[in-house]
Amino acid sequence: MTAKRNAGWLKVVGLGPGAEALITPEVSAVLSEATDAVGYLPYVERVPPRAGLTRHGSDNREEIRRAEQALQLAADGHRVVVVSSGDPGVFAMAAALFEALEAGEPAWRGLDIQVLPGISAMLAASARLGAPLGHDFCCINLSDNLKPWALIERRLRLAAEADFAMAFYNPRSRARPEGFERALEVLRETCGPARLIMFARAVSTPQESLSVTTLGQAQPAMADMRTLVMVGSSQTRLIERTAEGAPWVYTPRSVSGADV
Amino acid sequence: MTAKRNAGWLKVVGLGPGAEALITPEVSAVLSEATDAVGYLPYVERVPPRAGLTRHGSDNREEIRRAEQALQLAADGHRVVVVSSGDPGVFAMAAALFEALEAGEPAWRGLDIQVLPGISAMLAASARLGAPLGHDFCCINLSDNLKPWALIERRLRLAAEADFAMAFYNPRSRARPEGFERALEVLRETCGPARLIMFARAVSTPQESLSVTTLGQAQPAMADMRTLVMVGSSQTRLIERTAEGAPWVYTPRSVSGADV
Repeated sequence: MTAKRNAGWLKVVGLGPGAEALITPEVSAVLSEATDAVGYLPYVERVPPRAGLTRHGSDNREEIRRAEQALQLAADGHRVVVVSSGDPGVFAMAAALFEALEAGEPAWRGLDIQVLPGISAMLAASARLGAPLGHDFCCINLSDNLKPWALIERRLRLAAEADFAMAFYNPRSRARPEGFERALEVLRETCGPARLIMFARAVSTPQESLSVTTLGQAQPAMADMRTLVMVGSSQTRLIERTAEGAPWVYTPRSVSGADV
Repeated sequence: MTAKRNAGWLKVVGLGPGAEALITPEVSAVLSEATDAVGYLPYVERVPPRAGLTRHGSDNREEIRRAEQALQLAADGHRVVVVSSGDPGVFAMAAALFEALEAGEPAWRGLDIQVLPGISAMLAASARLGAPLGHDFCCINLSDNLKPWALIERRLRLAAEADFAMAFYNPRSRARPEGFERALEVLRETCGPARLIMFARAVSTPQESLSVTTLGQAQPAMADMRTLVMVGSSQTRLIERTAEGAPWVYTPRSVSGADV
């Protein structure tokens, strides 16, 4: 029993945005060694079933309970993989796991725990569109489930003042349809109506869709919970293609003294 | 000749931070199909040599010339891979490629161009340390080669005011030893000496080293050009391990109204 306990481990892994070809070999190897896969049900279902693997899918907003379950399984000697979409460190399970670790059983702190990175939705969406995050940028979760709206608005205003390109996770849900509308109002006020905004939905999956417009033209309904939204800096530019396809969007590497 | 021209393509790919197991299968497939690999010499050398592949390594700060060379090769019918370390869209070759595309031959706009994401140094370093970017964050290139120092300082002050966690690329080079010292001074002034700072050097390579300290204890010499530096938000926390290894660092997902 002691030997079995010592053999347990817990790895928090990123499955990337959807396509198999975007899962790192490091993560694929771990998925094939695990005895237990723990996570939000749609992500757990991305782990192929096989003999010797138990898949524990749970509901959204169950992150802490799910993390505790994973830690206890590892403490009991299981080889546990906690799966996130994208990268586990960007608005995903890694932070929840450490919250549960800090508040939980002291023995859990001796477990073999690793976080393995994945291709985040932000990097995948940026690649598809060109290089909109090619200069300094920030990344903000627009959900006010876990922080007050006032903080989100303050960060939007400061990010605009800093002239960061911006990537937004969780822009809009059925439970909070008005939040993204308020975010767009703040952005229009601070960045002006001509600023570029990009909507990248379900990148690398069969449901992928991309659109590029301006803050003046953007409508709240252009985003849902599967959409990664990006807003350019003042320097972000379009290049029309002569081949088919949407224009490229990129943020140049240079800012001259005159632009500051 | 026309058929050959049409068969050319250009893919800007990310090789991840160093380990083979962090290169996506999508990128590996492209490396095996390319006729030409173009990039900064140390990155081009990460592409295994083989018959039918010409490797074009160039010096640092040659990004635009390198991008033009890659575009011309693709226009001539070659299958060209432009390689970056990490992710190509984060302070790497993708933005340079689009700068060259916009300023270059009109015919280049009809080329088959794709950007393929990679595991960025920021995501790899964050995973190694725990989840320091688990809440809203920003990402700033500290090099003043391509932007004035005044803009860097302004962004540092606004990022501190927004209480973002921060990831810094290119903190320090032999050519600019004083820039990082000034950045540390601004951060100490705005975030206080107790704020956590992390140095992650050459993550996933045999030269990997990690350290966690406070702004009050941090020294400029702790970073070089291979170091990804992160500074926590006011909420970022340590968890000591009972097993061997550095403490975990994470930023909780929640901020209560009282903290705003």
